[in-house]
Amino acid sequence: MTFTPTDYLPYDFANRRHIGPSPAEMVQMLKVVGAASLDALIDDTLPKKIRQAKPLDFGKPMSERELLHHMKIVASKNIVLTSLIGQGYHGTVTPPAIQRNILENPAWYTAYTPYQPEISQGRLEALLNFQTMVSDLTGLEIANASLLDEATACAEAMTMAQRVAKTKAKGFFVDENCHPQNIAVIKTRAAPLGIEITVGKPDDLDASVVFGAIFQFPGTYGHLRDFTPEMEKLHATKAIGIIAADPLSLTLLKEPGAMGADIAVGSTQRFGVPVGYGGPHAAYMATKQSYARSMPGRIVGVSIDSHGNRAYRLSLQTREQHIRREKATSNVCTAQALLAVMAGFYAVFHGPEGLRAIAQRIHRKTARLAEGLKMAGFQVAHVTFFDTITVDVGPLQAAVMKSAVDEGINLRAVGDTQIGITLDERTRSDTIEAVWRAFGIERADKDYTPHYHVPEKLIRTSDYLTHPVFHMNRAETEMMRYMRRLADRDLALDRAMIPLGSCTMKLNSAAEMMPVSWDEFALLHPYIPRDQAAGYMEMIDDLSAKLCDVTGYDAISMQPNSGAQGEYAGLLSIAGYHRANDQGHRNICLIPMSAHGTNPASAHMVGWKVVPVQSAANGDIDLDDFRAKAEQHADNLAACMITYPSTHGVFEETVTDVCQITHDHGGQVYIDGANMNAMVGLSRPGDLGGDVSHLNLHKTFCIPHGGGGPGMGPIGVKEHLIAHLPGDPTTGDGAVSAAAFGSPSLLPISWAYCLMMGGDGLTQATRVAILNANYIAKRLEGAFDVLYKGPTGRVAHECIIDTRPFADSAHVSVDDIAKRLIDCGFHAPTMSFPIAGTLMIEPTESENKAELDRFCDAMLGIRAEIAEIENGTAHPKNNPLMNAPHTMEDLVKDWDRPYSREVGCFPAGAFRVDKYWPSVNRVDNVWGDRNLTCTCPPMDTYSEAAE
Amino acid sequence: MTFTPTDYLPYDFANRRHIGPSPAEMVQMLKVVGAASLDALIDDTLPKKIRQAKPLDFGKPMSERELLHHMKIVASKNIVLTSLIGQGYHGTVTPPAIQRNILENPAWYTAYTPYQPEISQGRLEALLNFQTMVSDLTGLEIANASLLDEATACAEAMTMAQRVAKTKAKGFFVDENCHPQNIAVIKTRAAPLGIEITVGKPDDLDASVVFGAIFQFPGTYGHLRDFTPEMEKLHATKAIGIIAADPLSLTLLKEPGAMGADIAVGSTQRFGVPVGYGGPHAAYMATKQSYARSMPGRIVGVSIDSHGNRAYRLSLQTREQHIRREKATSNVCTAQALLAVMAGFYAVFHGPEGLRAIAQRIHRKTARLAEGLKMAGFQVAHVTFFDTITVDVGPLQAAVMKSAVDEGINLRAVGDTQIGITLDERTRSDTIEAVWRAFGIERADKDYTPHYHVPEKLIRTSDYLTHPVFHMNRAETEMMRYMRRLADRDLALDRAMIPLGSCTMKLNSAAEMMPVSWDEFALLHPYIPRDQAAGYMEMIDDLSAKLCDVTGYDAISMQPNSGAQGEYAGLLSIAGYHRANDQGHRNICLIPMSAHGTNPASAHMVGWKVVPVQSAANGDIDLDDFRAKAEQHADNLAACMITYPSTHGVFEETVTDVCQITHDHGGQVYIDGANMNAMVGLSRPGDLGGDVSHLNLHKTFCIPHGGGGPGMGPIGVKEHLIAHLPGDPTTGDGAVSAAAFGSPSLLPISWAYCLMMGGDGLTQATRVAILNANYIAKRLEGAFDVLYKGPTGRVAHECIIDTRPFADSAHVSVDDIAKRLIDCGFHAPTMSFPIAGTLMIEPTESENKAELDRFCDAMLGIRAEIAEIENGTAHPKNNPLMNAPHTMEDLVKDWDRPYSREVGCFPAGAFRVDKYWPSVNRVDNVWGDRNLTCTCPPMDTYSEAAE
Repeated sequence: MTFTPTDYLPYDFANRRHIGPSPAEMVQMLKVVGAASLDALIDDTLPKKIRQAKPLDFGKPMSERELLHHMKIVASKNIVLTSLIGQGYHGTVTPPAIQRNILENPAWYTAYTPYQPEISQGRLEALLNFQTMVSDLTGLEIANASLLDEATACAEAMTMAQRVAKTKAKGFFVDENCHPQNIAVIKTRAAPLGIEITVGKPDDLDASVVFGAIFQFPGTYGHLRDFTPEMEKLHATKAIGIIAADPLSLTLLKEPGAMGADIAVGSTQRFGVPVGYGGPHAAYMATKQSYARSMPGRIVGVSIDSHGNRAYRLSLQTREQHIRREKATSNVCTAQALLAVMAGFYAVFHGPEGLRAIAQRIHRKTARLAEGLKMAGFQVAHVTFFDTITVDVGPLQAAVMKSAVDEGINLRAVGDTQIGITLDERTRSDTIEAVWRAFGIERADKDYTPHYHVPEKLIRTSDYLTHPVFHMNRAETEMMRYMRRLADRDLALDRAMIPLGSCTMKLNSAAEMMPVSWDEFALLHPYIPRDQAAGYMEMIDDLSAKLCDVTGYDAISMQPNSGAQGEYAGLLSIAGYHRANDQGHRNICLIPMSAHGTNPASAHMVGWKVVPVQSAANGDIDLDDFRAKAEQHADNLAACMITYPSTHGVFEETVTDVCQITHDHGGQVYIDGANMNAMVGLSRPGDLGGDVSHLNLHKTFCIPHGGGGPGMGPIGVKEHLIAHLPGDPTTGDGAVSAAAFGSPSLLPISWAYCLMMGGDGLTQATRVAILNANYIAKRLEGAFDVLYKGPTGRVAHECIIDTRPFADSAHVSVDDIAKRLIDCGFHAPTMSFPIAGTLMIEPTESENKAELDRFCDAMLGIRAEIAEIENGTAHPKNNPLMNAPHTMEDLVKDWDRPYSREVGCFPAGAFRVDKYWPSVNRVDNVWGDRNLTCTCPPMDTYSEAAE
Repeated sequence: MTFTPTDYLPYDFANRRHIGPSPAEMVQMLKVVGAASLDALIDDTLPKKIRQAKPLDFGKPMSERELLHHMKIVASKNIVLTSLIGQGYHGTVTPPAIQRNILENPAWYTAYTPYQPEISQGRLEALLNFQTMVSDLTGLEIANASLLDEATACAEAMTMAQRVAKTKAKGFFVDENCHPQNIAVIKTRAAPLGIEITVGKPDDLDASVVFGAIFQFPGTYGHLRDFTPEMEKLHATKAIGIIAADPLSLTLLKEPGAMGADIAVGSTQRFGVPVGYGGPHAAYMATKQSYARSMPGRIVGVSIDSHGNRAYRLSLQTREQHIRREKATSNVCTAQALLAVMAGFYAVFHGPEGLRAIAQRIHRKTARLAEGLKMAGFQVAHVTFFDTITVDVGPLQAAVMKSAVDEGINLRAVGDTQIGITLDERTRSDTIEAVWRAFGIERADKDYTPHYHVPEKLIRTSDYLTHPVFHMNRAETEMMRYMRRLADRDLALDRAMIPLGSCTMKLNSAAEMMPVSWDEFALLHPYIPRDQAAGYMEMIDDLSAKLCDVTGYDAISMQPNSGAQGEYAGLLSIAGYHRANDQGHRNICLIPMSAHGTNPASAHMVGWKVVPVQSAANGDIDLDDFRAKAEQHADNLAACMITYPSTHGVFEETVTDVCQITHDHGGQVYIDGANMNAMVGLSRPGDLGGDVSHLNLHKTFCIPHGGGGPGMGPIGVKEHLIAHLPGDPTTGDGAVSAAAFGSPSLLPISWAYCLMMGGDGLTQATRVAILNANYIAKRLEGAFDVLYKGPTGRVAHECIIDTRPFADSAHVSVDDIAKRLIDCGFHAPTMSFPIAGTLMIEPTESENKAELDRFCDAMLGIRAEIAEIENGTAHPKNNPLMNAPHTMEDLVKDWDRPYSREVGCFPAGAFRVDKYWPSVNRVDNVWGDRNLTCTCPPMDTYSEAAE
């Protein structure tokens, strides 16, 4: 006999787990959309000439279990030794409570950047803790949260110094004791901007020729030096002093602020964030309050809500590239929010006395190590140090290095005759003895008491982490509840759709996330010998090959660790290509008005001039204007930067013409990959004429947004640009990030996604993303104007609706609608991009029909509420839209509004039992920018606010 | 120079992470308590003569990192092979979304048993899904949620059959094809109850001499048989038919209900719950509606709340041992809630078509395996099978078994000449080929299509899992949100203290939990050769030694997988001892009136008569009454069962007298370990005179409660009882559970706790637990009567407050107070135990002063509200207490109450911003028991309820 066969494959990850709508729902949705089939809809939407020739083929897709099995095999090819290489990367102990409740908790990792502060108070508080920690440790007034890595933070500090220095000098001085990767990235950044870099000894600093200087503390080889004299010298010429400092060392040592530094930068990786073969982790920047407006990156600040209660939000947003474009302080967009949150919690968990104890322990161990080496006759380079020593070994360098590896330890080769050793929180007594053995020391005397090796004048005398949050009991019960409370204040993907156009907030599946926590991926130092990272290499090679297949490019660089960083790296590769062809003068970049703000900001960073191109009425690039400007600048045309499908959410047929025109006039084509989720498996930027693109792996390839990062922005290039890809940060020229592969510990996520989806699955995801967007567009049609459809009336993977008419008809702003959506239990769509007064909605393929309908119901309900204002049924000001979002406090208090509590709090779409409540009413951004506070406010003001 | 040394040890798990109050808080608390020091308080509280002689010494405690490192080394000694042993344990794939969001999520695993339904609607819904799944698959009307393992479920089914059968026959028939461990546990259970067991072939069933019979489906050797004729035979003599069935097989095969079975039992382990070397996993029981009141275990049912909305709660609680004591349906208390939740979600995740596809796949693979063996000339024992075949190998058994191990596979030796092979969800084609190789088959033909091997009449024809919850899209996004929504409806330890007297709701730390997920612990089959479980053995030996140190006993048995099971096993060991000394007639058990209900229920299960002993006015055992009864029953005295410190929360000085009297009259002393959290490191039951005790590892030793299980109840015994500990379930006599070590995959939690706390840390935890309880008692003094203090006015680790006066003064019941505490954001203390109308409060050492104060503030606020009723300020019926708990819906709707919304919803103690809202108003238990519904109600009734 036989059973009735089932057509249901329980392990079909793509169609059963990743893609939201069921086959039956898709049938219903296609009916609404008015398409005979999904094929027909796609044929309607994507012009034939831009479709890719053959389907993606990645072989048989894996089930979750097969994936994890396969991943484990690959992971096991990474050899996990104890790395004492230092150089900005340190072993650290991630407290299990933080690992489980933050890193592995979707409430934290699926959240978006806190641009909508009312639904982000939890992570804003966590990030404020981070800023307070940085500010306290560095002794500077204001800190951001956060930058990509220490090396890029150094480069950002340099350009910031140039902005704020009151001198016209063109030079920038770099302490030769800076970490090599910091120097490399500074050089890369300086070159196109015409900044003259001098690398030298601090004693040789000539402050008269520089606008700024950077020093490393402790130095990369371990040396401790008080930079107060250098800071004074710089200030005398109105130049800016920067110190790159290890924050853990600052629990014991004199802080940059006390030395007189204007800016401090560094990495908080060793605050509980695994090294991860280079990243991700959060870099920090702190500066004086007066320079706040020139500081790059996101800054959390304290403001008030419409009821006057304390509320956090991102401050000084007008500095950023969304608004100032090429005049922005930098192109930094994605931060390392999740990692900053972890580092902040690590400080809360340990408190000042805990951090101090950890630092003391490390120092004591380093002193012991040094003592043992000295007793055996080795020369240790510096008398004073924190956690790093450098030892002369003469011709024995290779032998000792190898002998250390045999002991399971990686040391750092310094020059040809020295070895660097850096201890950390994970160092055990065994480790020290193993190091001694590697140096041929059979038995060091274990009985002596090491004395401290810090100069008296470099001992820290000021307090830090004095805020009560760092003085909780820190018992795990209390910590766990604190983390939960903050998580509950936020609305993330684990509770509702986040229909953010251009951000692709799709499923980050548990299976994809699991390998990130594995030691084999988490514990590798970025500068180990390549043969210890064979698993990483296999993964990177295979993922690169797959991304080449997806994009039609010939090679991938994984180095850029954010999308904006990818843009920058991509433009650098174009600039390098032009230089190699004696076309180094080419410096004009054509960018449509509708481009992401990072595009012009990135172009600016490579020293180019941005020439904006108009949009046609239908949202497409105005081809005539484009052609005219290309012709006008033919001699100097460096590149155009376009987004595909366009930021208007349409597959423009003219894209190939745009590429052709650019090429005809000597330019290269940069295609922004932000909208790649509309293309995978259907169309390839490389085929359309692109020379280079970045891919936001945190959009299309499932790396979670983490509340505002981490991201990954690898670039794909055509053959002719391969030679101009970023170089190795430790050895080569042209590095853009501190680690060769950016933030490689995230790559298992994207790789897992590709392996489980397979080519067909990826393509189907794209198709369903387009279906979902068209379904929303159709359901909202009539109530809202859907702007920018393609010629057949279809949108791509997102749709833009126009809210400008309501400003006139009802004085309702796009903000009112966004805040009202919070009452409905939704994160707002992207606001006022690419056109002010619009909402850009991107549902992604992961949302099923029920959730799409809930969202459409909410939007239609809002439209009806607007109509009530329009027709005078509702009060023109005191109405649910303008009072949104409503909080539980509103319900409790006397209700003097012309509409009911029920109408206020349970609009269409809102869950009844499982209602999400924002913890604050509408946040006042202007107040916060006028009264800038970017560290934790004193506790007494908390209780005031609560009253 | 030197740094100022810090006295803060960041890695001091005991004092910094596990124990809640900081040293500074303890100073403040001691002042309130009126003790000069913690030492002084402990000296006050614990009589000298019961203190242990020397402190616990477990060596240097480990940090979290050292623990995980050590644990990994031990884990690696477990050899993870592919086990195709079957026999009730199967490889399964835990969906990563379920692993991360349930098993590893404190919102689920730290929850308590849902006795307070208003704060448990999420897990009650999840458990109702489980019951619906079981009910559907077995074809029986009602299911419980859940039992400890299949073997104990078989034994429970037997005793239930005896209760409901309308025949006086004393015999019970057991199919010889039942799993050996099921037969073993049935026999153990039957003996003391005088049930005559016949093990035989179904054909030999004599229905006239039995009250019931049990059959295994599929049989343990794989055979499929339709038991309809046997059921008819049994029904003809009014006996009860039981089928132990594999639920996965029931997706393809005729269900027990369709065969006419009265009861079905089995294990849901293979529904996504790792084997874990034997447990934990959830066993099920299903029966006819008419037998519902006789079914053991917890049953979730549907009722309404005070507003008439649907609400879930545990039904038919009056059957349970809390109330009926020795007349209860069984002593089952702890269930396997967390595992039942996982299994239920597994069914939701896969749906009927997914489960069916998994089962078909397994069957097809089994057919292929069998085909290959047959083609090679092997004799496969049965023509029809589901996933298990038995192969004749004659004298080659040992050789094939060994050869299989060499291939990485464990097979099952059946008799001396056969081998059993059971495939599962994890079986891959490779595995089948490896099995063939183990049988010496070089290359089986891979091209044939296997045909199905199920008899036509055993094909399932009925539908199952038809409820919409099993027909969600099941995309991970939707599943993740569903799991989050349910979690958010519940109040667990991750949000607030759960001050449940006698339940010890303390921290379950993330580090302790982590190893549970490791393959080395999770994937071992319980019946593998011992040498493959060397890691488990090392852990069990060391943990046993530590528990012996803690208790003063000489040996530990890990077999009992719940506290009640431990009581039962302990009493069995006493009974065995008496028998061995020709004192088998001893059958009187003295139990104080105040004992946990499981005590008399357990005594009943070993065939003893319970003689209750009075309490003195101060709550102590009435020594005169005890002595009198011991004398009266001297000839037949089997044992006494006492709890220490007593259930009144006092360290009775007379405990040693009680033990002495018992021993003097020939009895043995059972000391219930429920209150062990008040003793560890300070006093040892073995020293007091106890002969045997069980330990609730899920109370004192940090195994989380999981929403009502899993638990572990190992017993410690003195030397003379060692010979009478439970035997091996597969080979020996006297097994009480299906697996030799109960639920061993939980043991890493308790072991980790011991290793990280060290002896001093464990002792300090006990001391702080006592401090916390005394602090609460002192703060509540005056407002409430604190009953049962010791002679110096101290309580032990919990305190009992009297609410009976308020029944008279204000008609306020203990229930009103419990429900009002929900408004304050707390789980109520234990209600009406040991005395009706009281609340027993146990804070544990994990709660810090801030949380204790929040609780005390809440209680004092409630007292003030009672006073307002007493003095007429508040309405006698329409007041916050009697309307509690308040929901968000109450706020939204018109408010016609004489107190404000604010007073209703934000009483003292309630968080303002982070308020917990119950999803239903007060649940009507009586309505639910009268209108019994224990499966998911139809969807249309949901929308009704929502309106």
